Amino acid sequence: MSKNYAVVGATGAVGVEILKVLENRNVDVGQLKLLASPRSAGKTMTFRGKEYTVEALSEDSFHDVQVALFSAGGSISKQYGPVAVSSGCVVVDNSSAFRMDPEVPLVVPEINPEAVKLHKGIIANPNCSTIILLMAVYPIYKLYGVKKIIVSTYQAASGAGAAAMQELEDQAKAHLAGTEVPTNILPHQLAFNVFSHNSSMDPESGYNQEEVKMVKETHKILGDANIAIAPTCVRVSTFRAHAESIHLELREKGDVEKMREALAAFPGVKVLDNRQANRFPMPLEVSGKDDVYVGRVRMDYDDQSGTNVQLFVVGDQLLKGAALNAVQIAELL
Amino acid sequence: MSKNYAVVGATGAVGVEILKVLENRNVDVGQLKLLASPRSAGKTMTFRGKEYTVEALSEDSFHDVQVALFSAGGSISKQYGPVAVSSGCVVVDNSSAFRMDPEVPLVVPEINPEAVKLHKGIIANPNCSTIILLMAVYPIYKLYGVKKIIVSTYQAASGAGAAAMQELEDQAKAHLAGTEVPTNILPHQLAFNVFSHNSSMDPESGYNQEEVKMVKETHKILGDANIAIAPTCVRVSTFRAHAESIHLELREKGDVEKMREALAAFPGVKVLDNRQANRFPMPLEVSGKDDVYVGRVRMDYDDQSGTNVQLFVVGDQLLKGAALNAVQIAELL
Repeated sequence: MSKNYAVVGATGAVGVEILKVLENRNVDVGQLKLLASPRSAGKTMTFRGKEYTVEALSEDSFHDVQVALFSAGGSISKQYGPVAVSSGCVVVDNSSAFRMDPEVPLVVPEINPEAVKLHKGIIANPNCSTIILLMAVYPIYKLYGVKKIIVSTYQAASGAGAAAMQELEDQAKAHLAGTEVPTNILPHQLAFNVFSHNSSMDPESGYNQEEVKMVKETHKILGDANIAIAPTCVRVSTFRAHAESIHLELREKGDVEKMREALAAFPGVKVLDNRQANRFPMPLEVSGKDDVYVGRVRMDYDDQSGTNVQLFVVGDQLLKGAALNAVQIAELL
Repeated sequence: MSKNYAVVGATGAVGVEILKVLENRNVDVGQLKLLASPRSAGKTMTFRGKEYTVEALSEDSFHDVQVALFSAGGSISKQYGPVAVSSGCVVVDNSSAFRMDPEVPLVVPEINPEAVKLHKGIIANPNCSTIILLMAVYPIYKLYGVKKIIVSTYQAASGAGAAAMQELEDQAKAHLAGTEVPTNILPHQLAFNVFSHNSSMDPESGYNQEEVKMVKETHKILGDANIAIAPTCVRVSTFRAHAESIHLELREKGDVEKMREALAAFPGVKVLDNRQANRFPMPLEVSGKDDVYVGRVRMDYDDQSGTNVQLFVVGDQLLKGAALNAVQIAELL
């Protein structure tokens, strides 16, 4: 039984990937509506060899649509998500608008697919850094339990959208040419630089929103608020795959070989962990890949307890971090 | 009393900076010898407005030289360091050749200047990542003690030398032009990428040499082998300043304001920690600066013990990470 789909934010970085993922995964798409802001209306996009014209999103957009994939920012989701639901749609929302709503399931299909059943019209797609973190942590969490996660991220420009990816390129060209570096989208020069994630910061705790998301979303997805999480979110000069350096404190003694096996057996995870050849996951190589790549699985240097483990993880921010996870959720319906 | 100096590896990335630092700090340099490989001999370099011709390093290079600053790699240091000492020089060595030799002091002048007195001709300059780590950790270590350090680095191309910095630029240009990206110096594309530090790895522990240096050198400099250190060393697409995301487990409860005050009062450290404006240290801004910049001083998110603190630190790899620290050691003599 094919379903009719709408993609809200079809022309954005994630929207474009959603179309590719729907196509590549042979999702049974009946009618397809591509929705965006009035600015993008009239553009054409190709899906399975057929041209579609992008329409301006409106309250009438969702008639005869069964699944709406939203990726146009939190305020659009808040305004139009409930409209779509009242038109009979199931909404898979890629924004942060509904993630912490207790009525809304927050789902990584490999981890908590059963949560989808509880939906009341809206299912939230987690934040990219959280998805990539949990794809690597969950197989180990199931083996030994996890008391604490300390994670430092190396996040790509794509998390700030297609315009940020373009600006990174423009910045790099300007920097290399010695001309003025544009910072219209990004708050600082990202090309050949690194900066603390620019989401708004809680002045009390000193943690930014991206970091708070990693904590709260992890607790919700795992249904376990006892994991202490200490995140540091950082943007680096890469286009579309996030890396994360992860330290785990396990509840029991861990074994590196068993963890590698559990990771390799987990759907959506690939292990690339070649100590002899010094070959581990890199954002450039993982860009465009569905799987989350895990390497550098090792016990904490000179730790006596055997309960501290470290990992280096890379996932495509636009795929498993966004579009792919959203389409996987739709497939569960 | 002016001293005669030799700079070994004068044409390298660190050598060039050593000359600038000697000039800027008004070090009382009598005669100056610029030494390098036969390939670089005959080049001219300017110091305090005067031209010097680079000479090929030989066993006879150190007559009438009192201080030799070596920065030409470990094998040159091993071969010519003892020659310089037997000619009456004090050697400040920027390579890893002698760092763990129990007869050789390993010195960060703000931290263990007294160790210089114990030298027998050679004083070792620590690894860049270690110096930058300890400049931020030591003021907190003095306040509360430190049980454990978990650190993930964001290391610049400069750590691999001038040729690597040039190759990063060449790689970026090629990537942007869509032409073949050169990897003659770096093992992978670093431009718009991130990779696990390419120093050789111990297949048993899974830690690379850069990480092992951070552990062993920290123990030696602080004279405290009880600190557990779990490092992850990563190269990012930046030219010359390293960033480090640091998690500390303190021996006592810590107070953020007191730590900031101790850091701000410490020579060679600047605090840039503006939560309201989301302004923290960035490699681009710290490039060319003597000081190590510390920001994002905060207690661990949802930690109940009050003993876990996080920092984000940036230091110029070529200055405090290498040339500046070496010249500061020479000033202590």
